Amino acid sequence: MDIAALLTSAGINIAVCVVLFSFYSVLRKQPSNVNVYFGRRLASQHSRRIDLCLERFVPSPSWILKAWETSEDEILAIGGLDAVVFVRILVFSIRVFSIAAVICTILVLPVNYHGMDRMYKNIPLESLEVFTIENVKEGSKWLWAHCLALYIITLSACALLYFDDAEHMCKVIRDASMERTCKPSFMQCCCSGAPTISFKKISTEMGSTHGRTCNTDLHLDTGKKECSSAFVFFKSRYAALTAAQVLQTSNPMLWVTDVAPEPHDVYWSNICIPYRQLWIRRIATLAASVAFMLVFLIPVTFVQGLTQLEKLQKMFPFLTGILKEKFVNQVVTGYLPSVILVLFLCAVPPVMILFSAVEGSISRSARKKSACFKVLYFTIWNVFFVNVFTGSVISQLSVFSSVTDLPAQLAKAVPAQATFFTTYILSSGWASLAVEVMQIFPLLRNLFQRFILRLKEDALDGSLSFPYHTEVPRILLFGFLGFTCAILAPLMLPFLLVYFFIAYLVYRNQIINVYITKYDSGGQFWPIVHNTTVFSLLFSQLIALGVFGLKRSSVASGFTIPLLIGTLLFHQYCRQRFLPVFRSNSAQILIDLDRRDGHSGRMEEIYEHLRSAYNQSSLMPHTTSQPECVSLHEDKDSGPSSSEDMETGNENEISQKDRPRPIQRTLSMSSDKSVLGVKQ
Amino acid sequence: MDIAALLTSAGINIAVCVVLFSFYSVLRKQPSNVNVYFGRRLASQHSRRIDLCLERFVPSPSWILKAWETSEDEILAIGGLDAVVFVRILVFSIRVFSIAAVICTILVLPVNYHGMDRMYKNIPLESLEVFTIENVKEGSKWLWAHCLALYIITLSACALLYFDDAEHMCKVIRDASMERTCKPSFMQCCCSGAPTISFKKISTEMGSTHGRTCNTDLHLDTGKKECSSAFVFFKSRYAALTAAQVLQTSNPMLWVTDVAPEPHDVYWSNICIPYRQLWIRRIATLAASVAFMLVFLIPVTFVQGLTQLEKLQKMFPFLTGILKEKFVNQVVTGYLPSVILVLFLCAVPPVMILFSAVEGSISRSARKKSACFKVLYFTIWNVFFVNVFTGSVISQLSVFSSVTDLPAQLAKAVPAQATFFTTYILSSGWASLAVEVMQIFPLLRNLFQRFILRLKEDALDGSLSFPYHTEVPRILLFGFLGFTCAILAPLMLPFLLVYFFIAYLVYRNQIINVYITKYDSGGQFWPIVHNTTVFSLLFSQLIALGVFGLKRSSVASGFTIPLLIGTLLFHQYCRQRFLPVFRSNSAQILIDLDRRDGHSGRMEEIYEHLRSAYNQSSLMPHTTSQPECVSLHEDKDSGPSSSEDMETGNENEISQKDRPRPIQRTLSMSSDKSVLGVKQ
Repeated sequence: MDIAALLTSAGINIAVCVVLFSFYSVLRKQPSNVNVYFGRRLASQHSRRIDLCLERFVPSPSWILKAWETSEDEILAIGGLDAVVFVRILVFSIRVFSIAAVICTILVLPVNYHGMDRMYKNIPLESLEVFTIENVKEGSKWLWAHCLALYIITLSACALLYFDDAEHMCKVIRDASMERTCKPSFMQCCCSGAPTISFKKISTEMGSTHGRTCNTDLHLDTGKKECSSAFVFFKSRYAALTAAQVLQTSNPMLWVTDVAPEPHDVYWSNICIPYRQLWIRRIATLAASVAFMLVFLIPVTFVQGLTQLEKLQKMFPFLTGILKEKFVNQVVTGYLPSVILVLFLCAVPPVMILFSAVEGSISRSARKKSACFKVLYFTIWNVFFVNVFTGSVISQLSVFSSVTDLPAQLAKAVPAQATFFTTYILSSGWASLAVEVMQIFPLLRNLFQRFILRLKEDALDGSLSFPYHTEVPRILLFGFLGFTCAILAPLMLPFLLVYFFIAYLVYRNQIINVYITKYDSGGQFWPIVHNTTVFSLLFSQLIALGVFGLKRSSVASGFTIPLLIGTLLFHQYCRQRFLPVFRSNSAQILIDLDRRDGHSGRMEEIYEHLRSAYNQSSLMPHTTSQPECVSLHEDKDSGPSSSEDMETGNENEISQKDRPRPIQRTLSMSSDKSVLGVKQ
Repeated sequence: MDIAALLTSAGINIAVCVVLFSFYSVLRKQPSNVNVYFGRRLASQHSRRIDLCLERFVPSPSWILKAWETSEDEILAIGGLDAVVFVRILVFSIRVFSIAAVICTILVLPVNYHGMDRMYKNIPLESLEVFTIENVKEGSKWLWAHCLALYIITLSACALLYFDDAEHMCKVIRDASMERTCKPSFMQCCCSGAPTISFKKISTEMGSTHGRTCNTDLHLDTGKKECSSAFVFFKSRYAALTAAQVLQTSNPMLWVTDVAPEPHDVYWSNICIPYRQLWIRRIATLAASVAFMLVFLIPVTFVQGLTQLEKLQKMFPFLTGILKEKFVNQVVTGYLPSVILVLFLCAVPPVMILFSAVEGSISRSARKKSACFKVLYFTIWNVFFVNVFTGSVISQLSVFSSVTDLPAQLAKAVPAQATFFTTYILSSGWASLAVEVMQIFPLLRNLFQRFILRLKEDALDGSLSFPYHTEVPRILLFGFLGFTCAILAPLMLPFLLVYFFIAYLVYRNQIINVYITKYDSGGQFWPIVHNTTVFSLLFSQLIALGVFGLKRSSVASGFTIPLLIGTLLFHQYCRQRFLPVFRSNSAQILIDLDRRDGHSGRMEEIYEHLRSAYNQSSLMPHTTSQPECVSLHEDKDSGPSSSEDMETGNENEISQKDRPRPIQRTLSMSSDKSVLGVKQ
């Protein structure tokens, strides 16, 4: 592939993008599409009147301005913490790859281009390979330039990860949890335990043994199947947190406590899964994901075949004639493989979401986070590694047989594939943004419902939640490709940077206008981002090590090793410094919040709110398929109690909080603000 | 090596053992050795009068009877939970390897011996190789016998691990923590935090800002360096546990809380290590341990050379004459290598203890546990793997280059080394027990002090604590060898079984008579044992898979794979079911204990005890080198407070416990029973 072919591919993509973006700027102004492009605004304003300008058939860039001008606080208010995290990923990527692009264009690109004594052609006719590190002579003294660029990229990435971003995210998370005092929000726990003892049975037993009336507001028929889990409400967030974190009984599978998700985040159909099943479900899902990954090799191998025309001509001899035409050739090698790959990849997120649901997450955000992990591993494996180790399935598996040769093998394979990755960024990246902003599937559904089924306006359902599980891995994959190829094939960086700029505008627009934030993981995507970035850095250093080895530059190899060790140490330090904050709320913040609530005098109001918050039927009017799952709303004079095993433990633990009274077997749960789910 | 050579080796070892054991039974009756052989009894009875029979120069087996008759409860009372765990390891090993020995002698040994059509010699002249799986023909239909034996061994090991042992250990741990109510014992926490703010400064500040007198009983001069850590006492064990487990501030490195070790378990010189250093210390120690492991390859390679006589004759041609003599030959190949290896291995535990101390453990038991891990990895690596991959350092490292070939390579190498491992068990195992019971170094030191230095009887110091960090890895290594070689070279099992029987008697004797239990890890060695055993099983299955592959028995290979998966699932289940109990006390138990203490009316007494318990000078009269480390004993009207950052958080968290009062900025810590160390 030469520069001209790359420019053809870029041209096609730019044209597609310009057309789609213009089309979008017209479509969004049509009143009939308002529920496709302004789903969030509709949901928040409860009105279908949106200001629409008159010139509604003329393309305009106003949405870009609006997306650009929105501040981070507005994003936080509109999209929650997850949206802020997502925008931060883009900002981080833009910053890092701006630095990388400048350094690599000034320093690395000339070294690569003049790396070998040869005939220089007209630049458009130059093969892309002459811009990669493959063009540098063995033993060249100019490899220090690559090593220096690697140092600058790593250091700037680590610095950005640590100062504007990890610290920033921690601060945002702290502020956000402080923020929540303004709304009546809940710190909750969820317990699960042995499936033999039912919650209802215990409540009754407790009522009788201690001679108290147990008028729990149960919302369940006595005839129905008894439930193995429940939410329990605590007086304060801090109490709920401690109850959730402490091991309850000496059999860890009998009573399991955990912080409950926010009401809208609860994934009701998984609440009643017995705890004993969870570990086996997790293993089964893991096995299924790995199997899915391996099966997916078949389309990937086919796509890989397309980029190697000779192979294709051997397989389908009748194509030889067509493929000899220059334009067809360029389209087939430069554009078609990525499009096929993208289409196949569309099937992955729904499958992974299904796997994560089977896995047993009790919250929607946890399900999405788990799917995000799976999609991330999947894409990096199937897009990067499988494409790098070209050829058949068998030759890919033989890679495992030699671990120490891996850097050298990667060093050979990655620069050779840099061209493919550049076109992948053009096709998958740029085009996916255009598709994202167009919302093609919701648009088609809307047209179908509105003009074929002729549904009324109120019946049209346009509300979607942000697909973090597909978008986060996509951005991270591009970051991974960028770090890996930065010093090997610096020609990719400008395309990548353009992608991140457009993504920044597009996703901000989508957050502001389209997606509804029903639930929020509370910034749980950031650790994934952090770890993937550090992994990308380490991986790029490893490949650089291999390349420097192949090029017989002992100086550059020698300088890369301390960088590797330094990056590992940085990662260890960040794990110590930042990870606990993402895992659990700190006592300091929770106690502050509890205190403010106490002073605010709104405890009654909060309690009233709580009565309805964890009511499954009020949250999900359409679900009638899980009758056995209920939330228990404790009345003022009653409380959840415990099995014979737990009688002492659980009650005492709660009675710790009302210390002045003599230790008694009754629980006072009046005006409980927080929630503990008991699942047994 | 043939049967005769093996029997020579066994003969030498049996002779050595009989002589040493007889010698021991005489030496222990000598009054001058009483502080060597009865250190624990002396310490517990506070008297130097031990009943000594008159016939004190006649060997007698009475100590064996005594060791046999002691019950588990007595062991628990004498040696603590760790001693019980240690005895359980031996009981488990005896049971598993009894089953393995029976199965393998009946089923596997005849198959191996008759595996090939050949001339049968007189059995004593048969090479040991004909008893290993190497003697079985390729494609033999008798390999199902090995597969069946593997199934029986795995299933019995898992069943024993789960029912008589993991469950048993959990029960013992629960009972033991219940037991402790009888003694005034403590549930404690230790916090550490930023090194810039001193504990003393805070106490004063707190006193002044809230206008209260802060008469803390500090035990430290105002002029001395301020301390960055402290113990904090709580009213109840449950409160201390929650304070220890909850994340305190939004900067996880500012205030770090942890459960404090028991008073005698505190490792004072590490208490003041700033928390920020810990992660880098851990990494540095890891690197040092790995480096030490690799350096150790040199003596191991030398030892390996000794078992291959041809190599040795090439290296030292002048030895050829001597080595041709049959007896010398047998001693050199059968006995000398193991002795040299054992002598080199003696240097390992002290080095690992040093590493673990540098690592920053705040308790002696944690230091020992960490050293135990290191010694275990070290021994399994250096004794097993390096010996298996014979030859030079370079050929050993080349093993890493091919991961998928590993089972096949192991399958080739392990049976060939089974003979060496059998002699290793004879020399290192049997002889080490004789050395252990003789207590050679303390005996020599005692003789030197008593008859050369002529120290008085009171000045003789014979108290030692049990060296779990050397003995647990030793037992586990033999278990590992046993599982790995059971179906490959079943001739090893009888020797191993004898070893475990003698070990059972010897160690019980040592626990009863010799070692003093100054501190106890609370059964923390059991998870190590459990994990190592499961690893051994998995590893033996992997080797079996390789062997069956080499022998072209697809049926046996096919049946081994479900066994592998089943063992992995078993391990995962056990992690879910038992591991949390070893990591943390359950709320149920702690609350029960707190309640009993409350009812007992001995709170004042407990408080009095507490005042002195964490006093460094009273615990360690000889340490004057750590003046900056102090324990803070809070007076009734004062308490530990917090930096500006923590002011709100920490106080509130404690005021959670005295809920009835209005939320106030003062802490009531009267008659605190439990301890929280604050390190900042």
